[in-house]
Amino acid sequence: MQDAIAALRSLEHKNYAYRYAQSVINFDGETVAPADSAEGRAEAIEVLSRAQFDLLTDPSVDQLLADADAAADSAPDAEQVHAEVRELRRMLRQIRPIPADEYAAYERLTQEALSAWARAKKASDFASFAPWLEKLVEGRRRQAAQIAPDKDPYETLLDQYEPGLTIEKCDKFFDTLRAAIVPLLEAVKTRGSAIRTDFLDQEWPVSGQRALSQKVMELWGLDPSHCVLAESEHPFTDGFYSKDVRITTHYMPRDVLSNLYSVAHEGGHALYELHVDPRLDYTILSGGASMGLHESQSRLFENLVGRSRGCIRLLWPTLKQLFPSQLEGVTEEELYRAANRAEPGLIRTEADELTYCLHIMVRYELEKALIHGELAVADLPAAWNARYKEYLGLDVPDDARGVLQDIHWSQGNFGYFPSYALGSAYGAQAMADLEKTIDFDAMYAAGDLAPLRQELTRRLWHYGNLKETGWLVESLCGGPFDPQYYVDYLTSKYTELYNL
Amino acid sequence: MQDAIAALRSLEHKNYAYRYAQSVINFDGETVAPADSAEGRAEAIEVLSRAQFDLLTDPSVDQLLADADAAADSAPDAEQVHAEVRELRRMLRQIRPIPADEYAAYERLTQEALSAWARAKKASDFASFAPWLEKLVEGRRRQAAQIAPDKDPYETLLDQYEPGLTIEKCDKFFDTLRAAIVPLLEAVKTRGSAIRTDFLDQEWPVSGQRALSQKVMELWGLDPSHCVLAESEHPFTDGFYSKDVRITTHYMPRDVLSNLYSVAHEGGHALYELHVDPRLDYTILSGGASMGLHESQSRLFENLVGRSRGCIRLLWPTLKQLFPSQLEGVTEEELYRAANRAEPGLIRTEADELTYCLHIMVRYELEKALIHGELAVADLPAAWNARYKEYLGLDVPDDARGVLQDIHWSQGNFGYFPSYALGSAYGAQAMADLEKTIDFDAMYAAGDLAPLRQELTRRLWHYGNLKETGWLVESLCGGPFDPQYYVDYLTSKYTELYNL
Repeated sequence: MQDAIAALRSLEHKNYAYRYAQSVINFDGETVAPADSAEGRAEAIEVLSRAQFDLLTDPSVDQLLADADAAADSAPDAEQVHAEVRELRRMLRQIRPIPADEYAAYERLTQEALSAWARAKKASDFASFAPWLEKLVEGRRRQAAQIAPDKDPYETLLDQYEPGLTIEKCDKFFDTLRAAIVPLLEAVKTRGSAIRTDFLDQEWPVSGQRALSQKVMELWGLDPSHCVLAESEHPFTDGFYSKDVRITTHYMPRDVLSNLYSVAHEGGHALYELHVDPRLDYTILSGGASMGLHESQSRLFENLVGRSRGCIRLLWPTLKQLFPSQLEGVTEEELYRAANRAEPGLIRTEADELTYCLHIMVRYELEKALIHGELAVADLPAAWNARYKEYLGLDVPDDARGVLQDIHWSQGNFGYFPSYALGSAYGAQAMADLEKTIDFDAMYAAGDLAPLRQELTRRLWHYGNLKETGWLVESLCGGPFDPQYYVDYLTSKYTELYNL
Repeated sequence: MQDAIAALRSLEHKNYAYRYAQSVINFDGETVAPADSAEGRAEAIEVLSRAQFDLLTDPSVDQLLADADAAADSAPDAEQVHAEVRELRRMLRQIRPIPADEYAAYERLTQEALSAWARAKKASDFASFAPWLEKLVEGRRRQAAQIAPDKDPYETLLDQYEPGLTIEKCDKFFDTLRAAIVPLLEAVKTRGSAIRTDFLDQEWPVSGQRALSQKVMELWGLDPSHCVLAESEHPFTDGFYSKDVRITTHYMPRDVLSNLYSVAHEGGHALYELHVDPRLDYTILSGGASMGLHESQSRLFENLVGRSRGCIRLLWPTLKQLFPSQLEGVTEEELYRAANRAEPGLIRTEADELTYCLHIMVRYELEKALIHGELAVADLPAAWNARYKEYLGLDVPDDARGVLQDIHWSQGNFGYFPSYALGSAYGAQAMADLEKTIDFDAMYAAGDLAPLRQELTRRLWHYGNLKETGWLVESLCGGPFDPQYYVDYLTSKYTELYNL
């Protein structure tokens, strides 16, 4: 019977190697590869993704899974084996219905489209990216129909990022947020106390910003022997396994907060990946679980930790030392307020907590309409701009700061965006529960986030994909998910901040 | 018949993808990967190298090769198809005799050993690396016996880096060099004019050194959209395909020449890779040919170009601008002489042209003895140190600057080192021939190396592996290989430099 489990592990080990290779190729492509080298990457990715597909969809795998599942109960790690079988079967449901050639061609397409997107964004030229986006949308819609012919295709995609998520749940969730955020933002605009921001737009030397990144990584507790920071156009995290996690940032010479909160955000993702139980390395269960759970950790470290008074107090001496002239005459409280100000902006990744979910709603509505075939790619920029006007009151000056700003669609990721809002809400609820047992003021005063890391490890991180998403959400939040915690958090925070 | 060629190309395309993945993983591992992440890399490399092995050694491949070879004559690119078959058969002769598990385990071993070597070098602790080196030697010896049971195992390895190279040829070649170099070096020591070197050992800011690297890359004509420079412990080049080539360097704050000539050297490798005919991309023929030919280009650009008076004149304004205080009171001629001085040193990669081959001879003799089983790994440091005393007159102060200095053995590369000396000799002969048609003085005065690049492209670069090594050596050199050109070059250069 142990042979069946050994065969399962061997399959997962091979799957790990293909995933690892593709992760390194992607990471390299977005960080150090020369600008004009996408073709060679696409050629390699097509072959490797096809090999991985063939490995997992081989007809022999069904018997292998059945045998391992049967053998699990007499194994010392029964729960883990059952979970491995469960997650492999979930993956098989998502890829086996897709013809092998189509699967590999789509993976290749995402490499080429990513490169086309980067060029289009640079030139703010949506037209050059449109043909790629059409293929990306069309391909995902076809895959969704192959996977679940009778299901709404967008819902099939949502489920891949957040198992169990539906359009109905999304709509209800976003309605709840909208009902709270819109009047709150209106109140901030009409009767909020002014927040000083004059000192933000100035030259913040990149060398100082690099030193600040290191300080944040140190404070978060990211072990440099297992986690490195690189630079890319769009910040991201990739966990190769629990001992090798990469995060990236993007330095903007006139904006110190952009990099600071990129590192804070990606650092949250990285902590999650680094703390997954090493027993799960090289299995399908390694790495973080759903994208909502992943974003709950990144958004928690970005906002609930990184934008807290306690954390800004902790970072203040470093900031004053690195940027003495820039922060001349600025108080710690003024920095706190500036870092938390609510101000409709064009760029999602630089949005404050209050307006952030409005950016997500724009993307949710548009990608749903694209996949449903209700919105043509050619009409996307106009639809984007109209929603930014309606939701955020802003005119979008160009597509680089509009519809081309995010990397996700160029990688074929439709259905990912709601995870950010959902994760933000998971995080707020978790924080409300964590505050019952962790003395955050004392933790920040001591300058060591270990109590928070220990508790998040216990509730979420160390499980990897061992448990189902729903179970993990409850474990993290300390109870069934309820978006009211997030609404209450935003209301309370912005009422205090703006003296509403 | 075209189907047979399509099947051949499909096989090569898959082989490319596995090679690409392993190259990116290696490059990443030596440049940006966190320090303690070798285990995950080794796990992935083992699976990927095994998959590549299985792909190439599948019994069906013999028929595929026979069919493609038969179909070649009626194909428009007959020569290329025949060459693809030839090179695949050469590769099969080198890997098929090795049991698949042993092959993959050795690839895994090189990953782990590389990491162990890096730690050992840092701590100058040979003992911690010795068990790895024992496995590396033992494994290669066994593989050589599997590949060619009746042949000298070291000769089997030599042939993998330089097809056709034998111990007899090596011995004769090194005897020729020794007979010229030893008296020349003795003459330099006893009656050479003094060369000023006092200005070399000072602080050369790394920011300035980085700018110098860019200048060299620009001058060499390395297109940044296809070639990037990274940093690693040991400088190297890896060509992923003709549109994506990586070079690395290592900055030493108190040595401006180390990085300068590392970039010059790796830049020569990169030019070769970048100029291979793109028709050969994704086939077994892509990339440079033998390692001797590869080193001929790196050593040519490092020494015959980079250390020439014309090139130093070209770089002089940049150097004066980047390092005004460091070069205060130093003349262009003094820099030229310092960069060319003959001075026995401990480190091969920083050796001058005259002593360089003595470093190679040490390695050649020792690795041959290791593979022959005539030298135990435990006795290697003492043997190394004894030879440095004998050949270079130096006491080796520690293993970091001794037997641990080079990366090659930790990657299982035994039989590679002679390529450096052979390549240096190919390059000197080629240069003697190139000078008949290229006006180097005019070329340096114009500041554009295009005439040299064009001629090397025509003679060597664009062929990739289309032609056999022997043919390429003659094409490059303008006649049959004769080490006397190298001896004459060294004699003439150092006689002039030291007024002998």
